[in-house]
Amino acid sequence: MNHPHPHIHAEIPQGDSPILVEVWRGNLVESRHRCIAAVVDADAHVVKSWGDIERPIYGRSSIKPLLAIPLVESGAADRFGLTDREVALACASHSGEPGHVSAVNEWLAKVGLTAEALECGPHYPYYEPAAHDMLRKGETPTRAHNNCSGKHSGFLTTAVHLGEDHRGYIKYEHKVQQRLLGILEQMCGLDLGDVPRGVDGCGIPTIAIPVGHHALGMAKMADGKGLSAARAAASARILKAMSTEPWYVAGTGRFCTDAMKVTGTKAAIKTGAEGVYMGAFPELGLGVCLKIEDGNGRGAELVMGHLLRHFGIIGKDEAEQLQQSLTPTLRNWAGTEVGKIAAANLLNESAPF
Amino acid sequence: MNHPHPHIHAEIPQGDSPILVEVWRGNLVESRHRCIAAVVDADAHVVKSWGDIERPIYGRSSIKPLLAIPLVESGAADRFGLTDREVALACASHSGEPGHVSAVNEWLAKVGLTAEALECGPHYPYYEPAAHDMLRKGETPTRAHNNCSGKHSGFLTTAVHLGEDHRGYIKYEHKVQQRLLGILEQMCGLDLGDVPRGVDGCGIPTIAIPVGHHALGMAKMADGKGLSAARAAASARILKAMSTEPWYVAGTGRFCTDAMKVTGTKAAIKTGAEGVYMGAFPELGLGVCLKIEDGNGRGAELVMGHLLRHFGIIGKDEAEQLQQSLTPTLRNWAGTEVGKIAAANLLNESAPF
Repeated sequence: MNHPHPHIHAEIPQGDSPILVEVWRGNLVESRHRCIAAVVDADAHVVKSWGDIERPIYGRSSIKPLLAIPLVESGAADRFGLTDREVALACASHSGEPGHVSAVNEWLAKVGLTAEALECGPHYPYYEPAAHDMLRKGETPTRAHNNCSGKHSGFLTTAVHLGEDHRGYIKYEHKVQQRLLGILEQMCGLDLGDVPRGVDGCGIPTIAIPVGHHALGMAKMADGKGLSAARAAASARILKAMSTEPWYVAGTGRFCTDAMKVTGTKAAIKTGAEGVYMGAFPELGLGVCLKIEDGNGRGAELVMGHLLRHFGIIGKDEAEQLQQSLTPTLRNWAGTEVGKIAAANLLNESAPF
Repeated sequence: MNHPHPHIHAEIPQGDSPILVEVWRGNLVESRHRCIAAVVDADAHVVKSWGDIERPIYGRSSIKPLLAIPLVESGAADRFGLTDREVALACASHSGEPGHVSAVNEWLAKVGLTAEALECGPHYPYYEPAAHDMLRKGETPTRAHNNCSGKHSGFLTTAVHLGEDHRGYIKYEHKVQQRLLGILEQMCGLDLGDVPRGVDGCGIPTIAIPVGHHALGMAKMADGKGLSAARAAASARILKAMSTEPWYVAGTGRFCTDAMKVTGTKAAIKTGAEGVYMGAFPELGLGVCLKIEDGNGRGAELVMGHLLRHFGIIGKDEAEQLQQSLTPTLRNWAGTEVGKIAAANLLNESAPF
C-alpha cells in the first residue's frame, strides 16, 4: 500500500483504554495500568492492538530511531566515521554512565564541537551509582550527561555536515527540526503541519501522532518497503546499531539494553517518557507503539516484554533471562519481597507460554 | 449511626474509575489519572464520591494518623513528655532533612532507645538537597533517615510504655500490630481478620480496607462521635499536632506541609505511596480517602487540593498560595515551561471557584 496517508483503524475501538498491567502487593491488586498498543506492518495493516490506537500521543524519546534517520541518510555519519556505537547513542536515552558521557564527548570532538554546543539542560545521571559517585567527588553534571545528549549530537553532526548554522537547532522552525518533521510525515503517513505539539524534556519539539501511525513509522523502518534506497538503508543501519550496541541505547540494568542483548537484531526497542515504548521487528517487518494511559514506565516495559514473547522474538529460555523485567518482583527498603508487577488477564490471554 | 459495621455505598457505583486529573504538554493531554475518592461523615454518610468507593485498597502511609492513636491513648506520649512535634512525626512520611532525623534520635533517647531499635530499612532522604549533602560528605543513611522512622518510634514508645518486648514489632502477629488491627476495625467499621494484606515499604503490615471505610476512620478521628473519651481525645490531639507542626509530617516543599500551613487546624492531611491520600476536616467532622488507580502521587495531590477548595477549607487567596500544587506547572531540564497537571472536567464541575 503506497498511499501516503493511510488511515489506521483499531480492531476494536474502545473509549476506555484496557487494563493490561496489575501491580500486586500481598494478595491484592494495589494499582492498575491501562494501555493503548498497536502492532502494524509496513502496509499499515494492524496485526494486533488494544485500545483506541487512533488516539494522538507524543512519541517522546521512543521516537529517537526515526529522528536518527537524517544522520545516516545525509551521509553525515559516514563523513565523520561514526560507528554503531555513535548511531546507537543517537537513538539513546542513556543513563549517564561514564562510558556514555565520554563517548558523546569524543563524538563531538570528531565533528569539531564540544558539549557546550548541546542545547539540552544538564542533569545528574539516571544510573544511581554514577550520580552518587559524581556527588561524592563534588562533580556537577554537564550537558553531555543529559540522557538525550546522543540524539542532540546527531542533530549537530547533521547540521555541520549540511553546512547549516547549528545554533537554535532545538527550535521548531530550525532546519534540523523541519527536516525531522518531514521524515515523520513520510514515515508515519500523516500531514503534521497543524497537529498539537509540545516541548520535550530536552527542549526539542514533540509532535502528536496517533499510536497506530507511530507503529507504522517503526514498521517502515523495520521493513523498508516503499522507502527510497537511501532511507531504507539508513533505517536498517540504525536498527542494527541499536541491537548490536544496546548498552549505548540505555545502560546498566535498563530494559532496552537487557532485552536487546537477548533479542539481537530480531528487535530494536526504545523507551520514552510518560509510559511510551516503541519497537521495530526487522525479521517480521513489524512496528510497535504502546502508551500507558497514566504515563508510568513500569507498565510500558511489561507490555513491550509481552509483545516480544507474543511475536516469538524471545522464547521461554530468553523470557526466563528477562524474568525480572517481564514480571518484576517488588521489594521494600529492607529488601523483603512485597509484591510483583504482572500482566492482567487481557494480556495473559494472548501469551504464547 | 452506631452500628459497628456500616456498609458504605457509592453514590454512583462505577466499573471504571473516572478520569479526574489530566497531564498536559503543549496543547494535548499527554497522560490521564483515574481516581476513586470518598468524603464521609462519622455516621458513614457519603457526602461526596467518585468511582467505586467499596473497592479495597491499602492505605499505605496515609493511614499513619490512625496508627498513632495508641501512642497517645495509652498514655505513652504523656509519660515520655512528647510534644506536638513528636506526635506529628509519628504521623509522618518525612523527607529525611537533618531536623527530622535529629528529632527522631532525640525522641528515641527519651525512651531509652537508639535508631538501632527501628526495624525499617535505611534509605537516602527524599529531600534531594539533604541526600546530595550526605553524599558529598560521604555519609550513609541510618534507619532514622527512613521516611517512616517517626511512625516506628511511636510503635517502640508504646511498646516500652506497656512493658512489651519491642523486638519484631513490625510483624503482623506482634502485640503492636494486633493492637493497631483492632483500632482499624473499630475506626473503619469492619472485621479485618480475614482480608487481603501486604507488607509496606517500611516492613509493617498494610491492610486492605475499602476507600469509603478508610474515609470513615478519618471522619471518626475528625468528629470523635461514638468514640471513647480517651480515643476521641487522642484523635483530636493527633490531628492538631499534624496541622500545627506540618513540617514534621512531610518536609520542605511537600504538599502535606504546604497545605497544612495554609489550612491550620481546619484540616490534617496525609499522603501515602501508590497514589493514596487521606485527610480529616475536624470543623466539618468529615474524613477523606482517595486513591489514584495507577498509583501516581502527582494525581493524588491535585485531587486532595480540589477537595480542600470544594469543602471551603481553603478559599481563593489560599488556593493562589498553593497554586503550584493545585495546578502544577511542568518544566523540562532547562527550566522551560512545557505543560501542567490540571483537574479534568469531572473535577472542575464541582469546583467552587
